Amino acid sequence: MVKVATSVDVAKLAGVSQSAVSRAYTPGASVAETTRGKVMEAARKLGYRPNAIARTLITRKSRMIAVVASYLDNQFYPVVVEKLSKRLQDDGYHVLLFIAEANQEADELLMQLMQYHVDGIVLLSATLSSGLAKDCADAGIPVLLFNRIAQAGGTVSSVASDNEAGGRMAARALLAAGHQRIGYIAGMEDSSTNRDRETGFNAELATQGQRVFARAVGHYSFEGAQVAARQMFGTLDAAQRPNAVFVANDHMAIAVMDVLRGELKLRVPQDVAVIGFDNVPQAAWGGYSLSSIEQDAQAMIEATAKLMLAQINDETVAAQHVNLSVRLIERGSTGAAV
Amino acid sequence: MVKVATSVDVAKLAGVSQSAVSRAYTPGASVAETTRGKVMEAARKLGYRPNAIARTLITRKSRMIAVVASYLDNQFYPVVVEKLSKRLQDDGYHVLLFIAEANQEADELLMQLMQYHVDGIVLLSATLSSGLAKDCADAGIPVLLFNRIAQAGGTVSSVASDNEAGGRMAARALLAAGHQRIGYIAGMEDSSTNRDRETGFNAELATQGQRVFARAVGHYSFEGAQVAARQMFGTLDAAQRPNAVFVANDHMAIAVMDVLRGELKLRVPQDVAVIGFDNVPQAAWGGYSLSSIEQDAQAMIEATAKLMLAQINDETVAAQHVNLSVRLIERGSTGAAV
Repeated sequence: MVKVATSVDVAKLAGVSQSAVSRAYTPGASVAETTRGKVMEAARKLGYRPNAIARTLITRKSRMIAVVASYLDNQFYPVVVEKLSKRLQDDGYHVLLFIAEANQEADELLMQLMQYHVDGIVLLSATLSSGLAKDCADAGIPVLLFNRIAQAGGTVSSVASDNEAGGRMAARALLAAGHQRIGYIAGMEDSSTNRDRETGFNAELATQGQRVFARAVGHYSFEGAQVAARQMFGTLDAAQRPNAVFVANDHMAIAVMDVLRGELKLRVPQDVAVIGFDNVPQAAWGGYSLSSIEQDAQAMIEATAKLMLAQINDETVAAQHVNLSVRLIERGSTGAAV
Repeated sequence: MVKVATSVDVAKLAGVSQSAVSRAYTPGASVAETTRGKVMEAARKLGYRPNAIARTLITRKSRMIAVVASYLDNQFYPVVVEKLSKRLQDDGYHVLLFIAEANQEADELLMQLMQYHVDGIVLLSATLSSGLAKDCADAGIPVLLFNRIAQAGGTVSSVASDNEAGGRMAARALLAAGHQRIGYIAGMEDSSTNRDRETGFNAELATQGQRVFARAVGHYSFEGAQVAARQMFGTLDAAQRPNAVFVANDHMAIAVMDVLRGELKLRVPQDVAVIGFDNVPQAAWGGYSLSSIEQDAQAMIEATAKLMLAQINDETVAAQHVNLSVRLIERGSTGAAV
């Protein structure tokens, strides 16, 4: 049987107080860097590890936040997972990652993850049933929807962008360039993001006496968008196809551009102007130069971390709905000089 | 004080045995789907959660595996994080995610994550000091390097591709196309991936009486690769620049193609043939059509999961080094018809 080192042993070897050892392991606690260095060195020599799990049973805090993700092939989400993990890590929390199938009901996964006694749950582009939302509220576990809208009045928070305003911006950009036949390629039709982007887009077209010329559904997937693009543009009669298209996210817009240029030999923007949503890093790549409505990922992450930590640390903090502004980034795919 | 539901309460309400409740919550245990459904329904009604953390203290297993990642802007890694998480999840394990700064020593992060009593540690493109490797071994925590090579004879496992063979393949593909001035853009120079790819590349050039015409270092970053490309190709004298280049990964190769075509107005492949490494999803995009040496991510993940779970479940299983084969995928950037 190996003798397990305690904080007393570490304090003795490091020549510091026991409370200094404790503070060295408490994220955010005040401790001099030299003291911390001595503690870590002594801890390493003795093989000492403060027992986070035993501490959880005492404090009821695991310092883990579950993040339920899917769609990681859409580059918007890897960026979010990385930056959100880093942000929470800086506050002493770590992300327990759960991968959901695209469009999977999150409920069954949530049952699993509640076993880990996470302090909070962030759902990326997923929703949960009202029954399970209540279960989480009863258990005192804050839940936050990222890039989706929670029902008003419920116990679930949400951080999203002003998708309706974004849809309006996309329409204005295409109308300003003089396009008369404007199409729309939708994402998941029952998602709040698609609903709000499409609502804003149609509303703005209407204010200028237009309506959508063609519509197809890409389900937010690369392959779905390819099918939608072939359906919308695969006609030999140029008058029968749109000369501009708003695609509900960049991930799909890139697939649409590949079909337009590679398969259908149409030029972007001369034959078809394309605008997406998110402003993922790839939109700026020279091979696409994709105009896009930018979601401010950094601001969304900051709002998520602040709200989640506030709710974890004070259970009287109520669920909130954060709605962040978006902006148009014009590039070559809508004819802007780059 | 809320009365906490127990497995006895759940068994009674579901009309099943207590052992059926236990099996319903044990990943991999045999239990009929209808029984499992009844248990989950009853558990939901009663707000029952088996206490994973208390169970950890008894079994010494947390069913969490730490994954230390960085470089998530390189699309190879989000794919790996997603598929590895899903694969481990299917076996009842979850990933506790730690984000390291690129090139950060993993040691300090590892000290943090050992507090969570994870059952194992996977380092994506990172290494650890021999001192810490010993600490993990002493604590009985298996460690696996993914896409890096561990020192032979040590206690740390590794799963990587045959990078040297890949470097040879890249050289052969460029030589076969008749190129005489072949450049190399390196990744992190002290990484095993860069070292082995470059060694194989140079060795193959030598067998055909050539040597590398120009060399620059891109440090595996997008910005680093842009700088390297400007340095290597930013001359007006065509005879002074390479007419083909092997870039140590696709993430950098895309940046190089953007500089070549967008800034320097050189054609790919007519003026410069480009080949990368990894075969990330973006390499197949029409905007790049990038030839690449494919790493078999799926096979790497399967090997990682199998080895990690074997070591967790049987501490007599020794550290192993898995070396998977790679293959050439030819596309338009080296002149292949697509």
